[in-house]
Amino acid sequence: MSVTAAKGFTAAGIAAGIKENGNPDLALVVNNGPRRAAAGVFTSNRVKAAPVLWSEQVLKSGQLSAVVLNSGGANACTGPKGFQDTHATAEKAAEVLGTGAGEIAVCSTGLIGVLLPMDKLLPGVETAAGRLSEHGGEKAAIAIKTTDTVHKTSVVTKDGWTVGGMAKGAGMLAPGLATMLVVLTTDADLGSEVLDKALRDATRVTFDRVDSDGCMSTNDTVLLLASGASGATPGYEEFAEAVRTVCDDLGQQLIRDAEGASKDIKVEVINAASEDDAVEVGRSIARNNLLKCAIHGEDPNWGRVLSAIGTTKAAFEPDELNVAINGVWVCKNGGVGEDRDQVDMRYREVHVVADLAAGDATATIWTNDLTADYVHENSAYSS
Amino acid sequence: MSVTAAKGFTAAGIAAGIKENGNPDLALVVNNGPRRAAAGVFTSNRVKAAPVLWSEQVLKSGQLSAVVLNSGGANACTGPKGFQDTHATAEKAAEVLGTGAGEIAVCSTGLIGVLLPMDKLLPGVETAAGRLSEHGGEKAAIAIKTTDTVHKTSVVTKDGWTVGGMAKGAGMLAPGLATMLVVLTTDADLGSEVLDKALRDATRVTFDRVDSDGCMSTNDTVLLLASGASGATPGYEEFAEAVRTVCDDLGQQLIRDAEGASKDIKVEVINAASEDDAVEVGRSIARNNLLKCAIHGEDPNWGRVLSAIGTTKAAFEPDELNVAINGVWVCKNGGVGEDRDQVDMRYREVHVVADLAAGDATATIWTNDLTADYVHENSAYSS
Repeated sequence: MSVTAAKGFTAAGIAAGIKENGNPDLALVVNNGPRRAAAGVFTSNRVKAAPVLWSEQVLKSGQLSAVVLNSGGANACTGPKGFQDTHATAEKAAEVLGTGAGEIAVCSTGLIGVLLPMDKLLPGVETAAGRLSEHGGEKAAIAIKTTDTVHKTSVVTKDGWTVGGMAKGAGMLAPGLATMLVVLTTDADLGSEVLDKALRDATRVTFDRVDSDGCMSTNDTVLLLASGASGATPGYEEFAEAVRTVCDDLGQQLIRDAEGASKDIKVEVINAASEDDAVEVGRSIARNNLLKCAIHGEDPNWGRVLSAIGTTKAAFEPDELNVAINGVWVCKNGGVGEDRDQVDMRYREVHVVADLAAGDATATIWTNDLTADYVHENSAYSS
Repeated sequence: MSVTAAKGFTAAGIAAGIKENGNPDLALVVNNGPRRAAAGVFTSNRVKAAPVLWSEQVLKSGQLSAVVLNSGGANACTGPKGFQDTHATAEKAAEVLGTGAGEIAVCSTGLIGVLLPMDKLLPGVETAAGRLSEHGGEKAAIAIKTTDTVHKTSVVTKDGWTVGGMAKGAGMLAPGLATMLVVLTTDADLGSEVLDKALRDATRVTFDRVDSDGCMSTNDTVLLLASGASGATPGYEEFAEAVRTVCDDLGQQLIRDAEGASKDIKVEVINAASEDDAVEVGRSIARNNLLKCAIHGEDPNWGRVLSAIGTTKAAFEPDELNVAINGVWVCKNGGVGEDRDQVDMRYREVHVVADLAAGDATATIWTNDLTADYVHENSAYSS
């Protein structure tokens, strides 16, 4: 299903030989119209990979005919040659699809600082174009995996129209987009401005609130393509909700597959003076390595939550803070609360609630525990 | 030598029974004058432990007769009872030393959110007072250890006067003071205003630039006490340099003993537009978990350095960034530089240089690698 659940889209996923182990590494998603409206959001990292710079540029027209995605190399920090390679990839796709390079987005993921093997990639684009299918969504989702253990897809179908998508990402997951590539497609008949608004509204409260390891990528890209093939034009709220639902589902799948993680942690900040305060506090808690280790050890160490809150600029009084872990208010009024031995942490999902007692705003950040497996996986990634 | 290297000071370190394992856990440092000038800097965490709130208050007079320090419990997030306990500790010390509680600083370290066993601590203060000695500095340094594997002391002796000190800290080490307790003593004949300036000038470029794990403590305290017993009044620059040297030495000892670490990482940011930019970039690099894992794996993964720089607001152009790891410029002009296979990472110290090509300011942040041992140690700390 994935990116081909919506009418008007075909996709393919193949092994082009970019990855030395022979696994699938190249995906192509094509919008066959009648519309070719599109929107995108990108990493806020100031060190941006060549494909991000390229795709930001082509999206200014609000039109995309296709997206080429590769795993096995991020094409980041690769200088002018890296940008030429992205350009050549778009030109190749445009040639085989009979369109212009200015309607082709490119996404790459993998190791930073290594040039892509263009002698494998360009023939791969041609091969993928020959295998485009209305059933190709799963294969495309598989081809963009890096350290992901599973591929990630999601679909919402409403009255006569659909939003579907695929995502990859397992490490370097942090806000300003979690490190990931996401392509969403819809057959709703909507223009690029509506797509752009719906996508930004959705990512702000979904992908931007996933923070697995505090490390922001150079390559994050989320694209939304509309074919109009359903002929249906949903209202904004309905459409935006569908996009948000798919983004939320994919974001949850990213967290559940995060590198080395054994716990998925929902950090919910309540009674904040503002949403910004709630997000700042949530991120500070989600990035606290000591707390993430404690949760790995199934230790309801609320002192580490308070020490993380204390580093923020949010409005709160230290002696009014309350913290619940899995429903037990272990910290009340900044001090010892209910019996910490009552906290059951045996399951994968852990729910931390931080009550700032300063207003009525709320925000939820998703993160993971910090494990020896994360260390092992990331001390051997490029070697 | 430690805090008793300077003339006019006595100290003791004993096992009061605060730690269940019977290890030393209570230290007393006494300034016998003739002067009793003092200064202190404290955690910038807004969630401050009771002893921090107390000691900040008593230091407003610029006078300290003694410092009571305990390990085995942080007395943080312990509410009004915690503050009463700190007050009672100071009263007890004042009583046995024949002074006022307003001249007694208190420092605590250990688990957050647990009340101290005052039935052990108060008799311990009396016992420690009975064992005060001009040779007690080492024992005091030993008594403040928590997860430290070694005790940390440092001494600088100049023309007729001395600055000495002790430190503890091995986890929750981050700026706005690394998590630690530090007591410095000098027999120089100087007033509290000079001590305060020298101490702030020193901590800004030493302890504040140690960032082992990005986690800021609720209890950080650095105190400087002057007895005037040498009769010597050094010039400001000479004195400030001695204080800075001792702080730098103790800070290095903290990094070398950081929990689970196998590498000490010197992150040097050069050619920044401002010192603030250099510090911001240095901290961002030092806190990047993926880079810390890579260095643990002896992988010169400069892409992770660039992705960390890219998250800052510092002045730089992505295609002008250069990165050296252990002397090899693996990244030049934002792209691939010298051969990464030339980087020798076998030794404990790793030197990362980030050249922002944007000015002439510089700063150095010290951190550690992220290891499975860190995870193990911190997933079992309180249980």
